[in-house]
Amino acid sequence: MQRYEPADARFERSPGQDADIFAANLVDQRDGGPITVGYGRYQPDQVLETEIVVDDVMVVLEGRVSVEADGQVFAAGPGEIIYMPKGNSVVIRSHGEGALTAYVTYPHWAEAEEGQ
Amino acid sequence: MQRYEPADARFERSPGQDADIFAANLVDQRDGGPITVGYGRYQPDQVLETEIVVDDVMVVLEGRVSVEADGQVFAAGPGEIIYMPKGNSVVIRSHGEGALTAYVTYPHWAEAEEGQ
Repeated sequence: MQRYEPADARFERSPGQDADIFAANLVDQRDGGPITVGYGRYQPDQVLETEIVVDDVMVVLEGRVSVEADGQVFAAGPGEIIYMPKGNSVVIRSHGEGALTAYVTYPHWAEAEEGQ
Repeated sequence: MQRYEPADARFERSPGQDADIFAANLVDQRDGGPITVGYGRYQPDQVLETEIVVDDVMVVLEGRVSVEADGQVFAAGPGEIIYMPKGNSVVIRSHGEGALTAYVTYPHWAEAEEGQ
């Protein structure tokens, strides 16, 4: 059992991208369980194009994020959830106020990206 | 790809308990993926004793929740996360203001509880 808050997060830029978007895993493959849990921090007006290589749930805590997939745009603010199943090609954008998110992935995203 | 907000949730009392605590799956075994995603709604001052039969991540969106396990208490407010690995016996409590949470489980909690 563990409890986390944003102050526990050690944010790092995601590998292979140079936007001001940072991820901080709190639980991941090093802990021996099946899922990764973390916080995401988005500076204002950032863009990240990526392949979703694991099932990925994003819960928006602050600010606003939009995700474009197959020509559709899904926008979410505080308390809203975007579910990105494995296999989607997406463009994730933050807007003027930036964003803080919580994420859960199954299986572990960092291992899946390394395997690509 | 899906986007959810609390207004999308159809809250139901969890099977086998009578507290005023309600769950609303948004994504689950019926969708063919590996994880369940949903919202939880806690009325004030409720108590739920349960076995955690799947890996369960709770993100607090409003109010406050505390989880007691092995004599330790983990309390979380808005933006904070409680990670409950499979196999824990817990007492979950809401407090004066009730709570709204988002949850993600792997695998599907509803199937795992039916199997007990």
